[in-house]
Amino acid sequence: MTTPLPPTLAWEGDVLGRLILIDQTKLPAEETTFVCETVEQTHDAIRRLVVRGAPAIGIAAAYGVVLGAKEGFGQSVEEQRRRAIQAIEFLATSRPTAVNLFWALDRMRAVVESAPEQLAASLLREAQAIHEQDRAVCRAIGEHGARLLLNARNVLTHCNAGALAASETGTALAVFYAAHQAGQTLHVYADETRPLLQGARLTAWELDRAGIPVTVICDSMAGAVMQAGKVDAVVVGADRIAANGDAANKIGTYGVAVLAKHHEIPFYVAAPTSTFDLSLSCGAEIPIEIRHADEVAISFGQRTVAEGIGVYNPAFDVTPAGLISGIITEKGLIQPVDALHVRQLLEKEPTTV
Amino acid sequence: MTTPLPPTLAWEGDVLGRLILIDQTKLPAEETTFVCETVEQTHDAIRRLVVRGAPAIGIAAAYGVVLGAKEGFGQSVEEQRRRAIQAIEFLATSRPTAVNLFWALDRMRAVVESAPEQLAASLLREAQAIHEQDRAVCRAIGEHGARLLLNARNVLTHCNAGALAASETGTALAVFYAAHQAGQTLHVYADETRPLLQGARLTAWELDRAGIPVTVICDSMAGAVMQAGKVDAVVVGADRIAANGDAANKIGTYGVAVLAKHHEIPFYVAAPTSTFDLSLSCGAEIPIEIRHADEVAISFGQRTVAEGIGVYNPAFDVTPAGLISGIITEKGLIQPVDALHVRQLLEKEPTTV
Repeated sequence: MTTPLPPTLAWEGDVLGRLILIDQTKLPAEETTFVCETVEQTHDAIRRLVVRGAPAIGIAAAYGVVLGAKEGFGQSVEEQRRRAIQAIEFLATSRPTAVNLFWALDRMRAVVESAPEQLAASLLREAQAIHEQDRAVCRAIGEHGARLLLNARNVLTHCNAGALAASETGTALAVFYAAHQAGQTLHVYADETRPLLQGARLTAWELDRAGIPVTVICDSMAGAVMQAGKVDAVVVGADRIAANGDAANKIGTYGVAVLAKHHEIPFYVAAPTSTFDLSLSCGAEIPIEIRHADEVAISFGQRTVAEGIGVYNPAFDVTPAGLISGIITEKGLIQPVDALHVRQLLEKEPTTV
Repeated sequence: MTTPLPPTLAWEGDVLGRLILIDQTKLPAEETTFVCETVEQTHDAIRRLVVRGAPAIGIAAAYGVVLGAKEGFGQSVEEQRRRAIQAIEFLATSRPTAVNLFWALDRMRAVVESAPEQLAASLLREAQAIHEQDRAVCRAIGEHGARLLLNARNVLTHCNAGALAASETGTALAVFYAAHQAGQTLHVYADETRPLLQGARLTAWELDRAGIPVTVICDSMAGAVMQAGKVDAVVVGADRIAANGDAANKIGTYGVAVLAKHHEIPFYVAAPTSTFDLSLSCGAEIPIEIRHADEVAISFGQRTVAEGIGVYNPAFDVTPAGLISGIITEKGLIQPVDALHVRQLLEKEPTTV
């Protein structure tokens, strides 16, 4: 079946408008929206993973600044700026790992600093530009990546780096969507991705809607399907990539990368250039969010770990550059993955696809 | 805290008695028993994982034969034998992978064939002998294994190969219990073990009761904790081991073994000699149980994979001998793990520990 997805994020109205999100905590059981009228609601939506995925977090935060600033609209320029900066600083505390959040907030801050007149319109314009730019990035990543998968029939992904993680088709899944649209027969193994099951709940849901055959497996089954020769390539997203190409992504990605290496299966990371953080020399410097134990211990309303027993719940891990076959960006492919090739790619003008 | 566990399996009464099991599907939320009065109930208990773990399945099946035969007790010798054989054949269909099931049933069949007189008493005696023998096996595995962990502080295990999987302290966890009893400070990472969470629900529960510090992680986090240098050794159980040392165990074990190799962490399998199947030359011949998709798709009563989407749910995978640092049995250690050393160990007389 092919059923169009509702937009992951949509701005409704003018500078006094609101941000409409698909509530991803409810999928696939319920298809509902979560409306943000305030910066507090936007912060809450990011923190609770109503909206998630590095590019989508950046876009949501940009709109969140508009929401934060709008209460000052009509007041003095100084008051408007104060509120906008306050919103930026507040939103920066929502989640620590995805650098797209800080990248988007830096762009909004630059607007505050450079456009004191008509701040309302300028901020909304910038948020919409970030949103629109991501659409082009998704398309370019998809087309660059699809060329790498011409001989692949079975691919595997972890977590959700798809339409629900970005403006349009996502990053890792953009590659699958592009290959599928080009007529290629592709079957996707989706790791369910504990603890919050973004693979089972989101990736499988959106690929199925697009008519791409998908099989959900537990994270622990990736090794067995690779061992059986059922995986030709792995493509995942990223939340922050250091200057040397080390990439933070959803917890479990590192294990998949080690398995891919053991089975000599190409392992690609797909991410916009806004996911790179050149201020960090290597992955060990990437801040890793540790989330609440109950995400693991109380699964779907039922307690699965007895009370009082310790739980460790890091939300991300870091895959060293040496395990990554290539990083697919909107500007093209980084290969081999090292500091030199990362820098060269980032300095490049965007290519026309 | 240290709270004694109720016995995983207990026979109550004489030849007309019944089998009392902890209902492991209910742990850790509820501590209840499941009573088997018939062979059908025993078959159901094994199939639904009320009782699970290779050694425990074998013991339960042995008692199940007594339950199946008891309806014929008091009738002709021929009728008693017929019912016992029927019970053996029925119980052999309960689960396919753990060879201890077939090993125990073969022992019960030998009794049927060699002891036509007083079959009732002979069958119960044999089931109790299998049960009692497993206690000694658990203790011996624990002591052999503990010597390997003298320098380990942090260990990792997958699934449950503990008291709940056997008569007494289990296989993999027997090693941890023995080290703990010898005064060693040990901290255990328990993979939660999707889809049925035997690690979160059972391993963490029983180790915590024994006062052994335990931290539950999602299966996808094993790579991150190894990468952080937090794991000194891995010990897991097995459901069937081929003649060359390839070992089938709970799905996800293979991935842990690959990760352990990548990080140069010793990876041990602990299993009684009854887990070896010398009729199979290598792991590719081990039958792997594929279980119902709903175990993955409907987690804890809530649907996490949208209806109609494919799910693959193998219950076991096979770790090649080359990834196993050693196999800890009641007769001692197999190292290196290959066909020659497997055969030599199995031919050995049991050592006195």
